[in-house]
Amino acid sequence: MNLTPIGHIRSTLKDRTNAPRQATEGAPSATLEILPDFRQAVEGLRSGDEIWILTWLHEADRDTLKVHPRSDPRNPLAGVFATRSPDRPNPIGLHRARLLSIDNEDRLQVDALEAIDGTPIIDIKPVLKGECGR
Amino acid sequence: MNLTPIGHIRSTLKDRTNAPRQATEGAPSATLEILPDFRQAVEGLRSGDEIWILTWLHEADRDTLKVHPRSDPRNPLAGVFATRSPDRPNPIGLHRARLLSIDNEDRLQVDALEAIDGTPIIDIKPVLKGECGR
Repeated sequence: MNLTPIGHIRSTLKDRTNAPRQATEGAPSATLEILPDFRQAVEGLRSGDEIWILTWLHEADRDTLKVHPRSDPRNPLAGVFATRSPDRPNPIGLHRARLLSIDNEDRLQVDALEAIDGTPIIDIKPVLKGECGR
Repeated sequence: MNLTPIGHIRSTLKDRTNAPRQATEGAPSATLEILPDFRQAVEGLRSGDEIWILTWLHEADRDTLKVHPRSDPRNPLAGVFATRSPDRPNPIGLHRARLLSIDNEDRLQVDALEAIDGTPIIDIKPVLKGECGR
């Protein structure tokens, strides 16, 4: 169960302390830079598509099993699977975004992303109809 | 970028050929069996919660970059990132489900899941308000 990066996030967010917690909390637009070996796999994505971006949160602590949600000590400790903390056994980020443009099949602009610059991308998937409201 | 299983799917679906393509296409309920080391991380999840289950689709072909969507040759070839094919460079399954019950913090029943019996689970996350309709 070994992951291979398929690309990297390019963002004005340079470190985790300044990053918003969710895309809806003021995250900037960002670029998904796809590695040459995986350009073919992007064909068929179109501007305007809603996508899931899966990332590897490379600065996360994988030994953390409980956190105060949103790092607020007033929130009681909760298991990380009940939270969206980046600190978790397999630190995979799940981000929803809208594709704004695709240049040359290897630079995808998205509307809002809270991941920091340099974050490895491990997968991109279309959002399915019905996935969000069954 | 090495994943560690946090548990396994227990399901009446025993092989990929018989599995529905999506949970909304007639998938049965299933059990998430959490490994003892990760039980603490489940605390805070409640019956009725909507969750994302991330799995490792262990039977996938990781060299596939293009597919006929839904394995239908009438559909033109598309890059795997524009599809939900399990065959992709990092075969991570993204499944939405509702938690029906939690027994002993290590057996979580969910309403519908298209992953087959024995599939490794790599993460569980709550579905966020707004994630599905911004």
